[in-house]
Amino acid sequence: MRRVALEVVKTEGSARAGRLRTAHGEISTPAFMPVATQGSVKSLSPGDLVGAGAQIVLANTYHLFLRPGHDAVRELGGLHRFMGWPGPILTDSGGFQVWSLAKLRKIGEDGVEFRSHVDGSLRVLSPETCVEVQHALGADIIHPLDECLAHPATVEATERSLDLTLRWLRRTCAAHRSGGGPGALFGIVQGGAYADLRRRAVERVCALDLDGYSIGGLAVGESKELMYDTTALCGELLPFDRPRYLMGVGKPIDLIESVARGVDMFDCVMPTRNARNGQAFTRDGPLAITNARFARDPAPLDAECRCEACRLFSRAYLRHLFVARELLAYRLLSLHNLTFYLGLMAEMRQAILEGRFEALRTRFLARYGVESQGGANPST
Amino acid sequence: MRRVALEVVKTEGSARAGRLRTAHGEISTPAFMPVATQGSVKSLSPGDLVGAGAQIVLANTYHLFLRPGHDAVRELGGLHRFMGWPGPILTDSGGFQVWSLAKLRKIGEDGVEFRSHVDGSLRVLSPETCVEVQHALGADIIHPLDECLAHPATVEATERSLDLTLRWLRRTCAAHRSGGGPGALFGIVQGGAYADLRRRAVERVCALDLDGYSIGGLAVGESKELMYDTTALCGELLPFDRPRYLMGVGKPIDLIESVARGVDMFDCVMPTRNARNGQAFTRDGPLAITNARFARDPAPLDAECRCEACRLFSRAYLRHLFVARELLAYRLLSLHNLTFYLGLMAEMRQAILEGRFEALRTRFLARYGVESQGGANPST
Repeated sequence: MRRVALEVVKTEGSARAGRLRTAHGEISTPAFMPVATQGSVKSLSPGDLVGAGAQIVLANTYHLFLRPGHDAVRELGGLHRFMGWPGPILTDSGGFQVWSLAKLRKIGEDGVEFRSHVDGSLRVLSPETCVEVQHALGADIIHPLDECLAHPATVEATERSLDLTLRWLRRTCAAHRSGGGPGALFGIVQGGAYADLRRRAVERVCALDLDGYSIGGLAVGESKELMYDTTALCGELLPFDRPRYLMGVGKPIDLIESVARGVDMFDCVMPTRNARNGQAFTRDGPLAITNARFARDPAPLDAECRCEACRLFSRAYLRHLFVARELLAYRLLSLHNLTFYLGLMAEMRQAILEGRFEALRTRFLARYGVESQGGANPST
Repeated sequence: MRRVALEVVKTEGSARAGRLRTAHGEISTPAFMPVATQGSVKSLSPGDLVGAGAQIVLANTYHLFLRPGHDAVRELGGLHRFMGWPGPILTDSGGFQVWSLAKLRKIGEDGVEFRSHVDGSLRVLSPETCVEVQHALGADIIHPLDECLAHPATVEATERSLDLTLRWLRRTCAAHRSGGGPGALFGIVQGGAYADLRRRAVERVCALDLDGYSIGGLAVGESKELMYDTTALCGELLPFDRPRYLMGVGKPIDLIESVARGVDMFDCVMPTRNARNGQAFTRDGPLAITNARFARDPAPLDAECRCEACRLFSRAYLRHLFVARELLAYRLLSLHNLTFYLGLMAEMRQAILEGRFEALRTRFLARYGVESQGGANPST
C-alpha cells in the first residue's frame, strides 16, 4: 500500500487536477507548499496558514537536523505536534541547503561532510542518516539525499553527479524500507541541463516504483526556456498516476507554466521572502510597498483579496509599518502573498476542472507577461 | 457633557472597579492599555489584541507626529481606521518621548524644539500643536504637553518645571476647546519626588475640571517606595468620579500595588518589549525562554493560560523559535505576555467586585514578592 496516493480527477492538455491522500489528510492538486524552513513559516501561525488556504507545508531537513535536532523533535512528539501543524508535511533531503548554506563540504561515496552554518560544527549526512532524520521528524513525504550541482555544469560533471545521486537513491530506498518511518518516499529526478541525462534519471528513478517524483536542479539560474523545457520533458516521461513535485519553483508565472506542463506540487520561499522585503503580489502585478506613491493611498493591496491585510488595512498603513520597521509589516505581507499564491493554485485547479485552464493561462500571460512577476531569486 | 465618563461600580479600600464610557465603546477598569507606539502593538494584529482581552490601546503622539505625520493619518480617516482598531485609543502628549528619544532639545515658554530621532529634522511641539496633532489622530483621550524631568531633580528644578507644565496645561485647555477635537482631555499631575509639589499639581490641575487625571513622572528610576507613596497620595487627592491613569507603569506587582492605591488605568511596553527579549510572564513568575532547560520541555509557557502560544506550542518549540530568530517567536510571546497582563487586570477587577481584592493582593505578594516580577525598565 502506498503511503500517499494521487487520484487525477481531470486533465486539460498536460495540466492535471487531482487529490493527494496522505497520512495527515487529503490535499487538492495542483498545490503550493509554504516553506517552514526551521519549523515555522516565517512570521505566520498555523491558523494563518489555514486561513490563507494552505493544505501542506514544506520543512527543511537540513535546518531541523542542525537545530533543534531530529532527536529533540521526535522526543517532543514529531514535527506536526512540535510546530502545531495538523496537516501533511513534506521534507526535502537537505541536499540543496548543504550545497547553498553549509561551508567546507567534502563529498564522497558515503555522503557529505560539512560545517554547520549555525555553529560551525562538523556534520555528516549520508543517504541513511538523511532518512533517519526525516523518519524522526515524522514527515508525510520524505526525500533522498541528492547532490545539487551549480548551473552551468559540464555534461561529464552532471553525469557523474547524477550517477552518485542514483546510487544514493538505492541506499535511501533500503534505509526507508528497513527504517519503518511513516512517510512516503519521493524520488528526485536530477540531470541538470541535459535532456538525455534527465531521461536517464527518470528511467532509473521510476524503475524503483516510488510514491512520487520530484524534479530537482531547476530554478538555480538557468534560462526560463531550459526550465520550462526540462519540466515539460519530465512531465511527459513521469508516470501519470504519481504526483510530480517541482522543487523550489517559483514565480507566479512559473507556477502556471509548470502546471501546464504537468506538475502537481510546488514550494518556494518567494511569497514569504519577498514579503519581508516589501514586495506584495497582486492581480495587477507586484508592488513595492515602500514606494512613496503609497504614502497616502487608502486602497488595500489588492481589492479582490480577502486576506486580513487587505480586509483591514490600507497600502498607506502597510507602507508606514514597513518604513517604521514594525514586525506586523512582515506578517501582513507574508499572509497576503501566501493568500495570493494559494488562491492562484485554487484558481488553476478550478479552471482545469472546468476545462478552461488554457484560457486562464492565456489571460494571465497577456496581463502580466513572463518577466513582470516577482524579482528575487526563487531558490530556497 | 463629558467626552468620557467613569462610573465607579465597586470599591474595596482605595481599589476601584468601574466602567469608562468613551466615544469608541465602554471599557472595564482597572484597565491595562497595550502600547501601539507607532500605530501598531509590535508584532500583533487588532484581532490578536481583542483575543488577548484588550479594550483600549495607547499610541504615541511623538512617533505618529514624526511618522507618518498627523495630516496623513487624518487624511486616511483617523488613527482608528488607519490602524484597524475599532475600540478606544488614548494618546500621550509626546512629552516623555521628546525627553527620552529626541536630540538637541531646546525648551522655552512656547514649547520644545528638538531633532527628530527618525530623520534628524528640526521639529517643534507647543501645547497648541500637541493638541492639534492629537485632534488630527482622532484619539478618544488626549494629553497636554508636559515637561518630563529626569529623576532625581532638585526641588527648585521640579517646581520650575511643574509651573511651566501648568502654564502649558492652561494653553492646552484653550486649544482643546477651540480645536473642536472629538477626544477627552486628561490633565497630567507632575511634581516629581516632592509631596507638596504633587499636592500643588493635583490642586491646580483639578481646578480645571478635566475628564480624567494622569499621574506622570513615575517609573523613571525612583524607588518603589517613592513610586507607591506618590501614587497613594494622588489616589487620595484626585476626585473620586474621574478616571486616574498611572503613566508608563509597570511590572505586574506595580499594577496590583497601584490598583490598591486607587489607579484605574495603566500602560507599559514591558509585556511586549520583554517578550521580544525572550521573557514570558507566568503565574509562577517570569521565565527566560532561551534557557537551555526548556530545550526539551513539552509543557506550555503557562498551563493555565488560554492564549494561542500556550494552547498550541511547547516551551521547547518557543525556545527553538527564539534561538532560531524566527519572527513568530516575538509574536507568540507578545501575545502571551499581553494575555497575562490583561488577565491579571480582569482578575483584579473581579476580585474588587467580589470584595476579595485584598486577599488576591496578599496571595500575589506572598507568591512572587516585590522584586521577582519583570526585569527590564518599565518606562515607555
